[in-house]
Amino acid sequence: MSSNFGERIKISIFGQSHSEAIGVVIDGLPAGEEIDLEAVSRFMKRRAPGQHKYSTTRKEADIPEVVSGLFEGKTCGAPLCAVIPNTNMRSKDYTNLMKTPRPGHADYTAAVKYGGFQDYRGGGHFSGRLTAPLCFAGAVCMQILARKGIQIGAHILSIKEVRDDAFDPVQISAEILQEITEKVFPVCNDAAGERMREVIEDARLAQDSVGGVIEAAAIGLPVGLGEPMFDGLESKLAAILYAIPAVKGVEFGKGFAAAALMGSENNDPFYYDADGRVKTSTNHHGGSLGGISSGMPLVLRTAFKPTPSISQEQQTIGLDTRQNETIRIMGRHDPCIVPRAVPCVEAAMAVALLDLYYMQNK
Amino acid sequence: MSSNFGERIKISIFGQSHSEAIGVVIDGLPAGEEIDLEAVSRFMKRRAPGQHKYSTTRKEADIPEVVSGLFEGKTCGAPLCAVIPNTNMRSKDYTNLMKTPRPGHADYTAAVKYGGFQDYRGGGHFSGRLTAPLCFAGAVCMQILARKGIQIGAHILSIKEVRDDAFDPVQISAEILQEITEKVFPVCNDAAGERMREVIEDARLAQDSVGGVIEAAAIGLPVGLGEPMFDGLESKLAAILYAIPAVKGVEFGKGFAAAALMGSENNDPFYYDADGRVKTSTNHHGGSLGGISSGMPLVLRTAFKPTPSISQEQQTIGLDTRQNETIRIMGRHDPCIVPRAVPCVEAAMAVALLDLYYMQNK
Amino acid sequence: MSSNFGERIKISIFGQSHSEAIGVVIDGLPAGEEIDLEAVSRFMKRRAPGQHKYSTTRKEADIPEVVSGLFEGKTCGAPLCAVIPNTNMRSKDYTNLMKTPRPGHADYTAAVKYGGFQDYRGGGHFSGRLTAPLCFAGAVCMQILARKGIQIGAHILSIKEVRDDAFDPVQISAEILQEITEKVFPVCNDAAGERMREVIEDARLAQDSVGGVIEAAAIGLPVGLGEPMFDGLESKLAAILYAIPAVKGVEFGKGFAAAALMGSENNDPFYYDADGRVKTSTNHHGGSLGGISSGMPLVLRTAFKPTPSISQEQQTIGLDTRQNETIRIMGRHDPCIVPRAVPCVEAAMAVALLDLYYMQNK
Amino acid sequence: MSSNFGERIKISIFGQSHSEAIGVVIDGLPAGEEIDLEAVSRFMKRRAPGQHKYSTTRKEADIPEVVSGLFEGKTCGAPLCAVIPNTNMRSKDYTNLMKTPRPGHADYTAAVKYGGFQDYRGGGHFSGRLTAPLCFAGAVCMQILARKGIQIGAHILSIKEVRDDAFDPVQISAEILQEITEKVFPVCNDAAGERMREVIEDARLAQDSVGGVIEAAAIGLPVGLGEPMFDGLESKLAAILYAIPAVKGVEFGKGFAAAALMGSENNDPFYYDADGRVKTSTNHHGGSLGGISSGMPLVLRTAFKPTPSISQEQQTIGLDTRQNETIRIMGRHDPCIVPRAVPCVEAAMAVALLDLYYMQNK
Repeated sequence: MSSNFGERIKISIFGQSHSEAIGVVIDGLPAGEEIDLEAVSRFMKRRAPGQHKYSTTRKEADIPEVVSGLFEGKTCGAPLCAVIPNTNMRSKDYTNLMKTPRPGHADYTAAVKYGGFQDYRGGGHFSGRLTAPLCFAGAVCMQILARKGIQIGAHILSIKEVRDDAFDPVQISAEILQEITEKVFPVCNDAAGERMREVIEDARLAQDSVGGVIEAAAIGLPVGLGEPMFDGLESKLAAILYAIPAVKGVEFGKGFAAAALMGSENNDPFYYDADGRVKTSTNHHGGSLGGISSGMPLVLRTAFKPTPSISQEQQTIGLDTRQNETIRIMGRHDPCIVPRAVPCVEAAMAVALLDLYYMQNK
Repeated sequence: MSSNFGERIKISIFGQSHSEAIGVVIDGLPAGEEIDLEAVSRFMKRRAPGQHKYSTTRKEADIPEVVSGLFEGKTCGAPLCAVIPNTNMRSKDYTNLMKTPRPGHADYTAAVKYGGFQDYRGGGHFSGRLTAPLCFAGAVCMQILARKGIQIGAHILSIKEVRDDAFDPVQISAEILQEITEKVFPVCNDAAGERMREVIEDARLAQDSVGGVIEAAAIGLPVGLGEPMFDGLESKLAAILYAIPAVKGVEFGKGFAAAALMGSENNDPFYYDADGRVKTSTNHHGGSLGGISSGMPLVLRTAFKPTPSISQEQQTIGLDTRQNETIRIMGRHDPCIVPRAVPCVEAAMAVALLDLYYMQNK
Repeated sequence: MSSNFGERIKISIFGQSHSEAIGVVIDGLPAGEEIDLEAVSRFMKRRAPGQHKYSTTRKEADIPEVVSGLFEGKTCGAPLCAVIPNTNMRSKDYTNLMKTPRPGHADYTAAVKYGGFQDYRGGGHFSGRLTAPLCFAGAVCMQILARKGIQIGAHILSIKEVRDDAFDPVQISAEILQEITEKVFPVCNDAAGERMREVIEDARLAQDSVGGVIEAAAIGLPVGLGEPMFDGLESKLAAILYAIPAVKGVEFGKGFAAAALMGSENNDPFYYDADGRVKTSTNHHGGSLGGISSGMPLVLRTAFKPTPSISQEQQTIGLDTRQNETIRIMGRHDPCIVPRAVPCVEAAMAVALLDLYYMQNK
Repeated sequence: MSSNFGERIKISIFGQSHSEAIGVVIDGLPAGEEIDLEAVSRFMKRRAPGQHKYSTTRKEADIPEVVSGLFEGKTCGAPLCAVIPNTNMRSKDYTNLMKTPRPGHADYTAAVKYGGFQDYRGGGHFSGRLTAPLCFAGAVCMQILARKGIQIGAHILSIKEVRDDAFDPVQISAEILQEITEKVFPVCNDAAGERMREVIEDARLAQDSVGGVIEAAAIGLPVGLGEPMFDGLESKLAAILYAIPAVKGVEFGKGFAAAALMGSENNDPFYYDADGRVKTSTNHHGGSLGGISSGMPLVLRTAFKPTPSISQEQQTIGLDTRQNETIRIMGRHDPCIVPRAVPCVEAAMAVALLDLYYMQNK
């Protein structure tokens, strides 16, 4: 099992859905960085359940306790560890998962991989709950990135077939990112957001679920971030984004749509802007050329499958009975995890970008 | 710079488009594996240029010399190093790249990152040529995987808007993979392939280029491959696939389309087949649940942007003149790199899957 | 900062002497291993202060709380995290360390490295207290190793000039290791141990300190543990042993004494024993040939400098005053840390050996 | 197998004693560093055999061919690969090694580890010959370190019982290091060197071998190099030094002798020198406090066992016959490898120190 990420900023995430606590160790933070824990909490609250009627009714206080790595409010060079106690657990809801794996979840694969010893309660280490420590780590990294002029923000690009307006990959600004990340339901076009909420509510009423796409951007990146080949911007970002449960696709810039363009359309012409800075007049490359940041906004999209937990009866297998069986998932679950996944995407990006930031310096 | 990949199977790729040689060190191969170098060469030939009229006229003999790691035809436990001499180089074609970076290439980002010291000839370390050692490594790993019953194959799913038939994610078999990887132009539907070739030829005549999508599958994977969180199947595969130049999107199973499904549609029901093996009746998850192989075929798609090298005049900047300029790229280049990228995708998958194979054992 | 060790068994240690808590995340443990936490506690008690009159009077309850990774008493495949709250701290004892670095400690080097932001209280992350989570991790690994027939034990080989009897590197047995690790003062020769205690008490009375050498052995290792070159047995073990504060030398087998032997003396002849097993009649190589375990007992020695904290007046510098100054260290400290370091050496070995154990399998 | 070292400067060594070639890939070098290949060759010549009558008569031209990573004489950001062809091989000398492992060598352990598939010719990947690419890598790193004011040098401290004068750990200067590394037989006291040579010659005549100790120093290190815990100066240096065949002990500063000192003797008092720089009046800590460089000279000693290859008859086992047997080693070998190991120690230090240099920056 490998719950570590990063070379210069190393995070190690621990915990299961129903263990005593979950948390993260962040190793490699530079010393002397002031960390605003209030701001971290506000960021984490964007991911927390229970704010919307369409999200799970499990309440998580989710107050991370920083047990090391901060001294007088600043990073001190030692690994920063945050522990988030697990409370409000209802383990009995999940006891059947051991025997009848939920379709679309890791119950079956984990059972085989760990020989039946996995902590099956609530999905164990595979639970979406483990994105809470990721958000903590991301919020910390984001504060450091901000001091370097780098800002990250994401919005819901689509829920099922309802689409928000896409970011303008050339014009995206700090103001736009700020504004959108402050929304309870982060979309550019609030009317679209309203329709999305209806789609989610419809799914909930139908004991079903829906997925969606999150679009994210990072601006202010210096030119030169990202190492070639296996540690390029896309490689690092995709690797960490795919660690968020339910992600099934990641694309950069034009992404899959680029495959249908002519080279003459897709290539982004370089030019010097009025201030003598190098820009491209379009941004199909999404801020990365050869895996290295170009100075243009970094733009990516992440596809989330619909929440696999649905209350409808589903076909599954009895691991004990060796017979085909059916299951109804009764626990608390979101009909759509996309809104809560928005800060997770931002957090994952922040960790990867700060890691790459310190990899470039030599 | 970081041209290393893997934990249990570590590859280290070296070389530039116009350096003396390119190559790869593969560390961690188990001892005693017979390596059929003829088969490796046949595999690499699928990537080699010059087989089609639509590919670059640069001829590469590309005979890799294994300088270490094999003893009496078998791996001996020591790192296997293959060196591929660079021949048939025309460095003078590229001297202007230093001054006027090509749109869509890494010329500009590399120049900034390396302070002007990068080897700009032919794209240097960022050249598509560096996929040759990746193919060598992949071909070696593939032979070892084959002995474990794991087989990999890919086809061109689309060129511009022309689409091949998709793999059936449930039915995909060893025979189908074998058949398709033996084709010069690997598509399921040869009529579609014919139209794709026309699209490529049209692009060539128009001094333009086209991109496309490659779909790949791996079958025979045991249940349990892939470590949770940051070393899940998707994370590892995406990280290495994004190391192939021109890749802008990677998705698994239903991928982005899953975002528009209902949970009840997207969830794949489990059942016991006639032989008592666990299967899913559909395969929207693409063989990975929680980042761990489910035993169903692993299916992924990779989007390639159109070749950025086109002979048309393009807008760029003069790094010396600090003025906007134009560039015409005169060197040899493919109007579409997708056909040659097919074995690269397979090779990347093989390296990642063998690495994950040895990570799971404990 | 890099407080991570291992490839297949990864430990990440966090905490400072006076932070809320210290602890460790252990990633990569195989699932299904029963962990006897009582036995872990007994092991940790061997390191705990306050058992002898010659050790610091700081009391540490040191009850590690396992917050994740165990399920129904067994490892579940998820990272195991243990948190040890810091209690009984007297931060005011240390406030002068910020300004006048203690000779022999990391106060000065850490102050420069972290630009004055380090947590200087009690040595911060550099405190010997951080060996408590190492001992926790080692105790866990030791239980898994024991099931594979591998046993580790160490004794005090010398305190200042007083020497214990050395292990017989050929005959060392499970019984001897068991017996010695159960002693409060682990020596082979109790008379020597008595003299050692006198030397320590003399140092204490003289407001001074003494160092010593710890000899350790591991038996039952299969042949083949240790990867060549940089991950050989010696490389891995030395790397982790040097992470224990105050270690200044590590040697294997005959060690430095081998440098004064003739080859014909030092080479260990191979032979088949009565049971047809391969042995060497002497064991100057200390169980490692080419960095790979030979099946003979692994024997190593670790040199500890005298505790740098002494109550005598010492010369130092005023970081604020930029003047030479003197310092008297008033806090609680051991006149000799060697007895408490014995389990630390064993723990470090256990972590490295279990990591190597899982690296060899392929 | 793991022949990789480093995080920021990664080296990957490949080759066997009798493979086509040996070599190294160095990844992570900063771009724009001029590499004087003549100086690299001069450095490597210090390690090359055949210069002294007491060294093996195998001649190695050992002209490394740089096949990538340099452009117009400077590092270009891409991995630097040097290939050294193996010539003058006499494989027939070694064919018996497969069946009767040489005492003191890795023949037996490698045979078990690799299931009999190891390249046994000349020790394969375990041969001392593999220190040639290490020396190449070290020579390159040394040139970069020199531009940062860091200088490394080593001398033979002892051969068997004959001792050279030790470095003065406080006074060691660039001039002394320069002078000693230019000597064919690097000792401080040439009379001692003369006696050492006699001891070596006596061993040769007696068909025997001798070992010795190498003392090395690095000066000009900035304060702050070395990460705490597992990546401290001592951990990193010991890990790479133990990768040199025949090393059985590594100590820093006073090393094992520190264990016999009182704290009041061993602690090095801090003071401001006339220029206001922080110094210690003694240097028992050997330049490292808490694993972090103190600005004082880094001093270490490495113990080498006597060459295991001796022409005398030795007891061993027949892996085929399953009987005890005898062996006489007829190939070419050094009666003492210590003189040739001096540049290897320097090279290993250079690689580790440059890696740590780039780890500290943040």
